[in-house]
Amino acid sequence: MKKVNEIQHFLQEQQVDAAFITTPDNVFYLSGFASEPHERLLGVMVFKEAEPFVICPLMEVPDVKAVGWSYEVVGHEDTEDAWEVVLSTVKKREVPLNSIAIEKSHLTVERLERMDEIFDKVQFTNLDDQLNRMRVIKDEEELNNLRKAAELADYAVEVGCREIAEGKTELEILMAIEFEMKKKGVQKMAFDTMVLSGPKTASPHGIPGDRKVQKGDFILFDLGVVYNGYCSDITRTVAFGEPSDEQRKIYETVKLAEQTAVDKVRPGIQAKELDKAARDVISDAGYGEYFTHRLGHGLGISVHEYPSVTGTNDLVLEEGMVFTIEPGIYNPDVTGVRIEDDVVVTADGVEVLTKFPKELKIIEA
Amino acid sequence: MKKVNEIQHFLQEQQVDAAFITTPDNVFYLSGFASEPHERLLGVMVFKEAEPFVICPLMEVPDVKAVGWSYEVVGHEDTEDAWEVVLSTVKKREVPLNSIAIEKSHLTVERLERMDEIFDKVQFTNLDDQLNRMRVIKDEEELNNLRKAAELADYAVEVGCREIAEGKTELEILMAIEFEMKKKGVQKMAFDTMVLSGPKTASPHGIPGDRKVQKGDFILFDLGVVYNGYCSDITRTVAFGEPSDEQRKIYETVKLAEQTAVDKVRPGIQAKELDKAARDVISDAGYGEYFTHRLGHGLGISVHEYPSVTGTNDLVLEEGMVFTIEPGIYNPDVTGVRIEDDVVVTADGVEVLTKFPKELKIIEA
Repeated sequence: MKKVNEIQHFLQEQQVDAAFITTPDNVFYLSGFASEPHERLLGVMVFKEAEPFVICPLMEVPDVKAVGWSYEVVGHEDTEDAWEVVLSTVKKREVPLNSIAIEKSHLTVERLERMDEIFDKVQFTNLDDQLNRMRVIKDEEELNNLRKAAELADYAVEVGCREIAEGKTELEILMAIEFEMKKKGVQKMAFDTMVLSGPKTASPHGIPGDRKVQKGDFILFDLGVVYNGYCSDITRTVAFGEPSDEQRKIYETVKLAEQTAVDKVRPGIQAKELDKAARDVISDAGYGEYFTHRLGHGLGISVHEYPSVTGTNDLVLEEGMVFTIEPGIYNPDVTGVRIEDDVVVTADGVEVLTKFPKELKIIEA
Repeated sequence: MKKVNEIQHFLQEQQVDAAFITTPDNVFYLSGFASEPHERLLGVMVFKEAEPFVICPLMEVPDVKAVGWSYEVVGHEDTEDAWEVVLSTVKKREVPLNSIAIEKSHLTVERLERMDEIFDKVQFTNLDDQLNRMRVIKDEEELNNLRKAAELADYAVEVGCREIAEGKTELEILMAIEFEMKKKGVQKMAFDTMVLSGPKTASPHGIPGDRKVQKGDFILFDLGVVYNGYCSDITRTVAFGEPSDEQRKIYETVKLAEQTAVDKVRPGIQAKELDKAARDVISDAGYGEYFTHRLGHGLGISVHEYPSVTGTNDLVLEEGMVFTIEPGIYNPDVTGVRIEDDVVVTADGVEVLTKFPKELKIIEA
């Protein structure tokens, strides 16, 4: 319950009476309880000076207790107004409630209006920055989960490479990867696994399909797993058969751009410097127009989380931050290539979690 | 673009200047463009009296055009403030903008605050009811997608039954199902496939794992696929080996409850009457306390959508509505059983989309 206590300290410091957290990821972060409640209400209420509680669908009450949440758990039935249950639970605390911190980047307008209605004359403040500040710095337990998630992702790429063969479809390769992951105990991929081949590699958000891999293709894997609630996210691009000179040049440019950014990671530099470092390499090689997205994104409980690694983010890196570095070149006339690693900012530099080799791998066709 | 026109007519009728739609499901519904933009801005802006536009990440502009969106598409780069792009695009329309309809049940407080900032003195009204009213009535094209999605779900249960054998784990059965679905061209399951066995069937939201199926188990499948953007959602519970009398009684009670509710479906009755019909059967059999959730939920582009089929929803059913009927009994001392069908309200009754038989299936152990 260390993280709930941290929220409580924040409330005391800021003189805010309570915080109400309802996004599944943050509920998991604070309570250890992972659930996708859909439109049902699931939340953690933390008070400046009272016992916190979890509100959840009635049928999940035992599950919340089972993960070790040691404070009150309040269930609501589908036929009840969950907000009335929140209100009556809050009232029992007998503490003043003039201000509530909320997740403005996630809470819906409808829910805010509902809270505004049930809590008379309450001021709403923003909890996002505090949650971001907490979540962006991973503790050792979180890092271990991320390491393990990355190790599984490395293995998934290995499986994918092994599966490449003339006549196999992207989907067949994809399913072989996911089946092997399930066998390793992975319950959830971090996002839809991507296996793209040939011209489809040039679409940064392409969808795997029935296309059969062919000699001369580049094949792009973008995948990740969830391990103990933490995500990995790796991209590797490999060649099926001998690549052309232009394919090689694109690959080596992306590889250099990626490594250049990775090598710059250390406490004290700004996120945007990483983006620039990679982008400069790609622009200098003449492919600037084909690198159409940001360099990377924060990684943790969510596969895309704070911070965004863009050319405009002047966030100063600190020890314990984890994010992806994933430059790409998408030239529809030649090929797409993306290389992506998950990295941790360490006391004096960088730890790269994903370890699948980045030298151009040529699979015999 | 029929659905965009319908929103425009609504705006004209209500005298609201514009509508801004940002949830991926509604963007797909209106534009045909399916995408998960994560924290990036993706939206459809519709005007009372001007050309609508889609705003999306720059790299997705070609994809929006490819699905047949015939109006303007505006891209924004990661380094730009997407809201400034919205503002400048709106300004070019040269129409008054005093009111904007938004999705209050989805739009975040942060985005509302941003809109409030960029659009000077704009009033925000709620578009949710209109979108619900539109989406809840499925047209023939949508129904065909739902039928096909249900057919694939039927087949998935069949595959699951075939895979049951002494010593196999829940996850192995699950992967065999998903692999077969991919082979059938399914790109996405509608939600995490559930294969639960033995005591785990008594948890309505259990997680499949390494448990090996055993003689005497009930095995519960809850799964669905996405077909052309539309979801199915089926649950069947089967016996592995001869069931006990109490297991049988629970099964037959759920089956009768489910069928009783299905048989009541027709235009003019209220959603809550269905919930009551099923609940009464279960209560009369003495299992009332073990039916801990609502009867069902709307089904379409989202796997859980409007309307909720609860004991308190007095919504009057109309032709073209699609929802699930899924009573369950979760008795931790005996077994859990849930049976779920996807149904359409027809002009004079009901069409059941999911067709896998509901007689208790006993798989030889």
